[in-house]
Amino acid sequence: MKTHLDCYACLLRQALSVARKAGCDEETQLAVMKSVLQGLQEVRTDLPPPFTTTQIHRMIREKLPGRDPYLALKERSTQKALALYPWLKELVEGAGDPLEMAMRLAIAGNIIDFGPADDYDLVSSVERAISEPLAVNDVEALREAIENTDQVLYLADNAGETVFDRVLIEQIPVPVYYAVKNSPVLNDATEEDAVAAGIEQYARIVSTGSDTVGTILECCSEEFKRLYDQAEVIIAKGMGNYETLSTGGSRLFFLLQAKCEPVARDMQVPVRSLIVRRG
Amino acid sequence: MKTHLDCYACLLRQALSVARKAGCDEETQLAVMKSVLQGLQEVRTDLPPPFTTTQIHRMIREKLPGRDPYLALKERSTQKALALYPWLKELVEGAGDPLEMAMRLAIAGNIIDFGPADDYDLVSSVERAISEPLAVNDVEALREAIENTDQVLYLADNAGETVFDRVLIEQIPVPVYYAVKNSPVLNDATEEDAVAAGIEQYARIVSTGSDTVGTILECCSEEFKRLYDQAEVIIAKGMGNYETLSTGGSRLFFLLQAKCEPVARDMQVPVRSLIVRRG
Repeated sequence: MKTHLDCYACLLRQALSVARKAGCDEETQLAVMKSVLQGLQEVRTDLPPPFTTTQIHRMIREKLPGRDPYLALKERSTQKALALYPWLKELVEGAGDPLEMAMRLAIAGNIIDFGPADDYDLVSSVERAISEPLAVNDVEALREAIENTDQVLYLADNAGETVFDRVLIEQIPVPVYYAVKNSPVLNDATEEDAVAAGIEQYARIVSTGSDTVGTILECCSEEFKRLYDQAEVIIAKGMGNYETLSTGGSRLFFLLQAKCEPVARDMQVPVRSLIVRRG
Repeated sequence: MKTHLDCYACLLRQALSVARKAGCDEETQLAVMKSVLQGLQEVRTDLPPPFTTTQIHRMIREKLPGRDPYLALKERSTQKALALYPWLKELVEGAGDPLEMAMRLAIAGNIIDFGPADDYDLVSSVERAISEPLAVNDVEALREAIENTDQVLYLADNAGETVFDRVLIEQIPVPVYYAVKNSPVLNDATEEDAVAAGIEQYARIVSTGSDTVGTILECCSEEFKRLYDQAEVIIAKGMGNYETLSTGGSRLFFLLQAKCEPVARDMQVPVRSLIVRRG
């Protein structure tokens, strides 16, 4: 998916939001904004938004040396999600179709995204995900793919959402590789966040070898690229993975909420739609 | 009120929105965005937002020669408001306090603002304005001021909102000067828009002599400045007039909806608040 012009204002808003989250004074906030204004002059609109988002968040981190502005938020997101874990398990265990319920919960967790918005309501996201129809519904195709493979590659998205991913992974009867970012970017999950969610009990945590938003294969490690190339079934969480891998073929299954206008437009669904889409 | 860093992303969003409204192709949209990114590098944050907004909208218009991108929208706004006029008059005539009702309706019309948002729901704005409490309520002070003056200066805001202003002006028993922009900027009312709303039957339409958003006195004509200096009571509509004149003294009465975060924060009210505030 290419970068839309709508992304510019969103990235500028994110820059200010990050600077504030990091507790910067107004002068530093302004310096961050100005470097982002400069960076936005050179956006490659022919590339997916994560190329720019990654670049912009690198620039922001350079202005905020020595601290990850999302660290405390990520920890809080994981704690909030873990507090819901017993409820999520009850929902799965009580469901007529536990696998579909777990997919829906994995989508519910995708609301924990500090890119398109500065806050989220986790409980209402769960309630929506378990009751609303999916705008794109490839649940049966994903079920069949899982039944006919001997392992799954699962591309993580955000910290806290990891807990919801764990609920889905617990329903997958074959070994799962859970791919996280190599180092912090936005509120994306790193190894630490995956471990905090308890993922390592159910999947093998691997790194993409990169700090890019979504999965930009040319930035990933050789080791990860081999794993990716060999995977028969890939569950790709969130907008960033859709934006970077949407043309990656039918072994990919995108689970997400279409939280912004450009992604919703690209998927031809209304904003806020719940999606299980085969590539 | 000084310019907040939140204004940057909002102005960038407005730039794209204007370019699209003008029917530009993607290449021109991108050119508009890039010129705005450049312009935003030089924002004077110590000045009120309308200094920047005016500058940015001038830059946008330069990239879109020969057409006012808001013209059709302004005409439609006026038509939509005129269609409600009989209902608005009924509301005033049926009210226990017709003057307060007319003030509330004037505030309802302030929703017609293509700065903070790309669309508006006029009927629900009226319903809200006639039923919700005012977050700042200087209605009695304004009533008293009107009773004790022999003329009122009324600073207009947007086209279409003009119809709602007319409803209030009809309740003011002394002569009213209705000040509009000298030439188009955003969807602000010009003389043409005021006439289309039927204002000239109830007030003398005058020009600020300027194309600035809000009222930046140093940009106004000598004639308007004299009128402003001599006015005993000034009704100032909308966020732009609040942003530029908030320190202008107690003869000013700001009637508006606080539609964005920076203005709401400055006024210490929640976003969407309805306001009648004495300066």
